[in-house]
Amino acid sequence: MGKVICVGLGPGDPELMSVKADRLIRSARHIAYFRKAGRAGQARQIVEGMIGADATEYPMEYPVTTEIHFADPEYNRLLAAFYEDWAQRLAELAQDETVVVLCEGDPFFYGSFMHLHSRLQGRAEVDVVPGITGMSGCWTATGIPITWGDDVLTVLMATLPEEELADRARDADALVVMKIGRNLPKLRRALAKAGRLGAAWIVERGTMEGQRVQRLSEAEEVAPYFSVVIVHGQGRRP
Amino acid sequence: MGKVICVGLGPGDPELMSVKADRLIRSARHIAYFRKAGRAGQARQIVEGMIGADATEYPMEYPVTTEIHFADPEYNRLLAAFYEDWAQRLAELAQDETVVVLCEGDPFFYGSFMHLHSRLQGRAEVDVVPGITGMSGCWTATGIPITWGDDVLTVLMATLPEEELADRARDADALVVMKIGRNLPKLRRALAKAGRLGAAWIVERGTMEGQRVQRLSEAEEVAPYFSVVIVHGQGRRP
Ligand SMILES: C[S@@+](CC[C@H](N)C(=O)[O-])C[C@H]1O[C@@H](n2cnc3c(N)ncnc32)[C@H](O)[C@@H]1O
Ligand SMILES: C[S@@+](CC[C@H](N)C(=O)[O-])C[C@H]1O[C@@H](n2cnc3c(N)ncnc32)[C@H](O)[C@@H]1O
Repeated sequence: MGKVICVGLGPGDPELMSVKADRLIRSARHIAYFRKAGRAGQARQIVEGMIGADATEYPMEYPVTTEIHFADPEYNRLLAAFYEDWAQRLAELAQDETVVVLCEGDPFFYGSFMHLHSRLQGRAEVDVVPGITGMSGCWTATGIPITWGDDVLTVLMATLPEEELADRARDADALVVMKIGRNLPKLRRALAKAGRLGAAWIVERGTMEGQRVQRLSEAEEVAPYFSVVIVHGQGRRP
Repeated sequence: MGKVICVGLGPGDPELMSVKADRLIRSARHIAYFRKAGRAGQARQIVEGMIGADATEYPMEYPVTTEIHFADPEYNRLLAAFYEDWAQRLAELAQDETVVVLCEGDPFFYGSFMHLHSRLQGRAEVDVVPGITGMSGCWTATGIPITWGDDVLTVLMATLPEEELADRARDADALVVMKIGRNLPKLRRALAKAGRLGAAWIVERGTMEGQRVQRLSEAEEVAPYFSVVIVHGQGRRP
């Protein structure tokens, strides 16, 4: 009897993966990971040099990423079929073998593995190993603590409508915004409305090669997929 | 020239510390950590068996924890003097030696080290190694993902007033509440007002020995210091 073990890889620096993740990956005989078709894939890159010579790799290639809008029913249909197909394949493999699934950051925090996890219930034993989130890697890279005392931290996706982003940014003490990419101009406007633009930072590729840490007001108009916008809390401190 | 390196230890299970933290701790010659006077200290316990025989330990004992309310000026005065004293001692040590400071979870996420960090600026070189947060360990322990799609995650301290807890709990998709302890009855009332009590979980000592995962409605009236209350998000999923 095998099982499926999803391991969180942390924000990108391979040394920031947990001792447990490191051990599981080095000894794995079956390793699956998501990637965009035709790309190396960030998860796979993090573990470069760690995978055993006898391990079998299973790249799970998204049928669509940003070519179709996520509100389009077709987007949903394609992804649902993709997750169902891989859940089936991993469940079969896990009848006799243990398969390690790689996941950037922490798997249960906005991770793609969650869509396999729900479909694997009752079909395979599943374990999840938490990881350092991308946002922890990013706020650490700014050199400034994110939350003090009883600061309220709000985590937002930049895919939300501009008005909601503005309202929630106004309401939070500390703020983390993920999934930036093409939503950056909208996010800037929302932060400006909320009076938080001046205090915002952007961290691109936190802890990875090519990391960039800047004040958002000084950054360019475009940002890579691996970007986080941060407004630090200012709470109570003795 | 030495420096001060604060390493995040993760939620409690020693295998969940990063490869980097593991390496730094095993090779450290000077190791400092916070603890309550007369206690072993959670951070120190996590690294039990990892510290070299020739290492010097510096337990930094809080002059006060919950004996005085944090709103009392005396609380502030005592803690400020304590942090200033230790910042001074670590800065002196770091003139020639490297000292590793242990911190539970992720240091920049509501961590005590932040109070040393700000005081060490300009007095010593300081590095911070992020860690898996306690909350990641806790939501993973529930076996249910915390956030999906564009769910908004709010992180609250149970030390906040009841009305604010209720308003913010109503407003969030996914919710994490920390610093539970004696605030549990107030938090329950707030969650009930917000209509979120039925969906709430409590995780005590996540990933540590004695971990407990329960529905909050079925849990006792008291909770240990290391407890997190969680309401999972229900966002978009293909
Ligand atoms: C689908 S979410 C996955 C989050 C992941 N499970 C985690 O725990 O961080 C992808 C988003 O995470 C953020 N992200 C993750 N790692 C990052 C890093 N190292 N630097 C910057 N952003 C990162 C970006 O905002 C990106 O759009
Ligand atoms: C002062 S905060 C420190 C947070 C820490 N820096 C982190 O990243 O998790 C202490 C609070 O963290 C939460 N906590 C941390 N680790 C935990 C664990 N393993 N299980 C339950 N709660 C935990 C509890 O709510 C506790 O009151």
